[in-house]
Amino acid sequence: MYDLAAVREDFPILSREVNGKPLVYLDNGASAQKPQVVIDAVTQAYSMEYSNVHRGLHYLSNLATEKYEAVRGTVAKFLGAKDEDEIVFTSGTTEGINLVAYGWAMPRLKAGDEIVLSVMEHHANIVPWHFLRERQGVVLKWVDVDANGDLDPAKVLDAIGPKTKLVALTHMSNVLGTVVDVKPIVDGAHDRGVPVLLDGSQASVHMPVNVDEIGADFYAITGHKLYGPSGSGAIHIKKERMAEMRPFMGGGDMIREVHKDVVTYNDPPMKFEAGTPGIVQQIGMGVALEYMMGLGMENIAAHEKALTQYTRDKLDGLNWLNVQGKSATKGAIFSFTLNGPAHAHDISTVLDKKGVAVRAGHHCAGPLMDHLGVSATCRASFGLYNTTQEVDALVDALELCHELLG
Amino acid sequence: MYDLAAVREDFPILSREVNGKPLVYLDNGASAQKPQVVIDAVTQAYSMEYSNVHRGLHYLSNLATEKYEAVRGTVAKFLGAKDEDEIVFTSGTTEGINLVAYGWAMPRLKAGDEIVLSVMEHHANIVPWHFLRERQGVVLKWVDVDANGDLDPAKVLDAIGPKTKLVALTHMSNVLGTVVDVKPIVDGAHDRGVPVLLDGSQASVHMPVNVDEIGADFYAITGHKLYGPSGSGAIHIKKERMAEMRPFMGGGDMIREVHKDVVTYNDPPMKFEAGTPGIVQQIGMGVALEYMMGLGMENIAAHEKALTQYTRDKLDGLNWLNVQGKSATKGAIFSFTLNGPAHAHDISTVLDKKGVAVRAGHHCAGPLMDHLGVSATCRASFGLYNTTQEVDALVDALELCHELLG
Repeated sequence: MYDLAAVREDFPILSREVNGKPLVYLDNGASAQKPQVVIDAVTQAYSMEYSNVHRGLHYLSNLATEKYEAVRGTVAKFLGAKDEDEIVFTSGTTEGINLVAYGWAMPRLKAGDEIVLSVMEHHANIVPWHFLRERQGVVLKWVDVDANGDLDPAKVLDAIGPKTKLVALTHMSNVLGTVVDVKPIVDGAHDRGVPVLLDGSQASVHMPVNVDEIGADFYAITGHKLYGPSGSGAIHIKKERMAEMRPFMGGGDMIREVHKDVVTYNDPPMKFEAGTPGIVQQIGMGVALEYMMGLGMENIAAHEKALTQYTRDKLDGLNWLNVQGKSATKGAIFSFTLNGPAHAHDISTVLDKKGVAVRAGHHCAGPLMDHLGVSATCRASFGLYNTTQEVDALVDALELCHELLG
Repeated sequence: MYDLAAVREDFPILSREVNGKPLVYLDNGASAQKPQVVIDAVTQAYSMEYSNVHRGLHYLSNLATEKYEAVRGTVAKFLGAKDEDEIVFTSGTTEGINLVAYGWAMPRLKAGDEIVLSVMEHHANIVPWHFLRERQGVVLKWVDVDANGDLDPAKVLDAIGPKTKLVALTHMSNVLGTVVDVKPIVDGAHDRGVPVLLDGSQASVHMPVNVDEIGADFYAITGHKLYGPSGSGAIHIKKERMAEMRPFMGGGDMIREVHKDVVTYNDPPMKFEAGTPGIVQQIGMGVALEYMMGLGMENIAAHEKALTQYTRDKLDGLNWLNVQGKSATKGAIFSFTLNGPAHAHDISTVLDKKGVAVRAGHHCAGPLMDHLGVSATCRASFGLYNTTQEVDALVDALELCHELLG
């Protein structure tokens, strides 16, 4: 069974107050809190086991290297990847997608070539492609979501034409909570000879992910959203795509030999990891993923599904609240505005006074804001430690907003 | 006064043993150990003050943003930069130099344009330029060091021709310990209209650095070598150069607006910082820099100068030891081999058995290894906490190497 009280005990920050109220942390979509095991692993690494990795032969360097490199296997296990050499460490999904944009797409795509995106992408999965548009004439083709916030796989496949070189989609919207039915998209794109990149930044937090089953060419995750340290992350890249990629950042570790007139590169995945990596962050991410797998991704998903249903029912009862995204697949992410002129920033400020931490703004999803016809929303995004009592606290605080700002 | 015993007390790892011997950590050139104040700051951030930055309005987000953004001023103070908006956060010098290569050089340099490098650069300051050579025909011009490992500023300036677009140099060799006389190089290059990038990864650790006095266009530092967390760093970029740069990585934070067909970018320095940054690492780096400034960079430099002299005298007495680099400017970095066939890896393994941690290999300095005619060396690199007793321990362990391997 999922012992929620025990889970909450694992996260020291959840016992604190803000503004004289117990913290109700509903900003998990931006970044998640860290369990004590992760904090302890970071402390232990810096206090007793720290060294640079890979290039030393002394005891501490071997120890740090062993712990650091073991995380590659942990990520592979977490993502259901059969080969840990298909895991590249990154500082998060942003760097992961930039790696693909610079390392794979930039040297391959020509003016007029197309990239298919959905309108609900995060800027991390938009701006690197805008660079290719600005710099080399690549065309971005956008697929809309329907009124519920669902993305029809057939519409994505319809957008693929003879010049399409990549489909780049989120697996789960960071604004609407929609979980995209990615499998038919990946299969259909592959039938048409087009690789697929998935932004797994949100999906990997809330549900079991198996990249081998999904079959995407690129699948990026972010450690700090997965209860790990800031600056951690990884991307799964299929071997065939890795073989097509040139290196992204240049520096130590990613080379085999460097001379004045010639440079040769290390084998993947090291070829794509330049310089001293985020040693302790990645060790911490490994512990975070083990923590999640210890709880069980199915159990986390079941807990969050119940929480999502509870939240939907409660928010549906507020007829002055406008919740974005009604997909049947919706996960525990709720973006909303009040009917009337109240600004999302003011709402979040009132919520904060009641200890409820939500995010207000465009959520790095400009095209979706345009699509929805709003400039900003508030977003309550849940994690594995949130409770129905916290949903109640959110609703109470929203009632106050309605009273003060409605 | 510099209270070395008290300083050592600040670093918990220094009290540990390895292989049954007290740890003698002489691998600071690769990465430095962390004082308790840094570890505590990281723990505090994750335990009680964690949130994503910039995009939230709630209490924890404001708190984290305030602490994170304050580090920009700390870095500016540490580097003697008058304007903290000239500080861009990075994950280290490797990312910093890649930012310059991709953001500034790539769109500006054409086939036949030249970049002047010294032969003692680290791969972080070589491979990004090799990319430009491979990908767009840029020419790398190499300036040798003399028999002592000194780089003659006049030779660097002589290498500048009408096609030279950048001079990219280390401020201090990570292999030889040579401190480069950068001021006349920067002045001379600027007289010739050529910008200068300095790799301050090593120099900033061992001596006071004032970027406004030096006047380089780009000055990169690495947090984990500066007693801060892994994955932290910064680069100082002059406003005029920032204005010439296009963004490097795309994602959240670095944009102003994102629409389907158009993207506009944030002002520098944010324009060059994409996605959720290394929040806690940078907070930790700020504490590390405050710690160093609290000790006093002049005091640290004086301590290390004495330690360097002591080490030189001791190693000079070992006539079977071949130390690379005899510059009068030499800082506390000693690369060496044994006369005879003993491999650097074997030497480091023997030293490790005595608790002495040194690095063995090419030290990410391939062209310098070629220049020296060696494939690898051992390197003992000192930090602010090292002692003459540790030098003695190194010498004792070297005597054993000589006996076993010599």
